[in-house]
Amino acid sequence: MHTTVSFDRNLPLVGVNEKGQHTFFDATLDPSTPAMYASPMEIMLQSLAGCSMMDIISILAKMRKKVITLDATLDAERAETHPKVFTSIHVRYKLSSPDCTTAELEKAAGLSMDKYCSVAAMLKASGCKVTWEAEVVGG
Amino acid sequence: MHTTVSFDRNLPLVGVNEKGQHTFFDATLDPSTPAMYASPMEIMLQSLAGCSMMDIISILAKMRKKVITLDATLDAERAETHPKVFTSIHVRYKLSSPDCTTAELEKAAGLSMDKYCSVAAMLKASGCKVTWEAEVVGG
Repeated sequence: MHTTVSFDRNLPLVGVNEKGQHTFFDATLDPSTPAMYASPMEIMLQSLAGCSMMDIISILAKMRKKVITLDATLDAERAETHPKVFTSIHVRYKLSSPDCTTAELEKAAGLSMDKYCSVAAMLKASGCKVTWEAEVVGG
Repeated sequence: MHTTVSFDRNLPLVGVNEKGQHTFFDATLDPSTPAMYASPMEIMLQSLAGCSMMDIISILAKMRKKVITLDATLDAERAETHPKVFTSIHVRYKLSSPDCTTAELEKAAGLSMDKYCSVAAMLKASGCKVTWEAEVVGG
C-alpha cells in the first residue's frame, strides 16, 4: 500500500491514496485558530470503526440480511504521558434492519473484531483494550 | 475522545468528531463500483503521517525553522492472512525549508517517531516495523 500526506503552510494536511482520493486532517497547531478537520488521532479511531463496519456489512450481506443504516459510536481513553496511546476503546454498533437479530449482528461484529478487522487486531496487539456491544433497531 | 462513524446504504462511511467535522471513508464492497474515498486502512496509514507531521511541524517551529511544505510518502506491507495487519511501514519525509538542515529535520522526525507520535507508538507496539528517512530541499 502506497500513500502520501502533504502539508503546505496554513492549509490542512491532505492524504492522497493511489487512486488520487483525498482525506483531510487537521494541521492547526495554534489553539486559537479553529481547526477545519478532525485530528489524526480522531481519524485513526474512526478508521477502527470504518474497517470493522465494512466487515460487518459484508458479513451481513452474505447472511442475506438487510442493512438500512449502521452506526458506530466510539469512546476512547488515552495514556496521560507521551506518546499518549489509546489504552481502551469501546465501540457501540447500532444497526437498523428489518430482518437481522441482535444475535446475528453480534456474530458479524465478533467475526470482525476477533478475526477480520486489521485495525482492531493492531490496536489489540499494541496493548489497547478494545470492547464492543451491538444493538438492532427496527428497519 | 468520542467520535461516531455512520453508514447509510450506498453512501460513503462518514466519521464525525465532537466538533462536527467530517471524514469520509470508502464503503464500497462491490469491486465494480468505483470508490469515492480512501479505504479505512489507507486512512489509518495516513493518520501515522498526519500525527507525526504535526509533531515535526511543532518541533521545527520551536527550533525557529521555517516550513514551506512537508510531505510524507508511506509504503506499507500487510500480512497475507487475516486480519492482514501492517507488518512494515516506511515513511519518507521531504521538507522544503530555507533554513533547516537535514540533521535538524532528522532530530525532529526522530523525536516524533520515538517519543511523541501516538500512532507510531501503537503501530510499533503491535509488532509492525516502522522505519523512516528524511530529506530537506531548498525552500
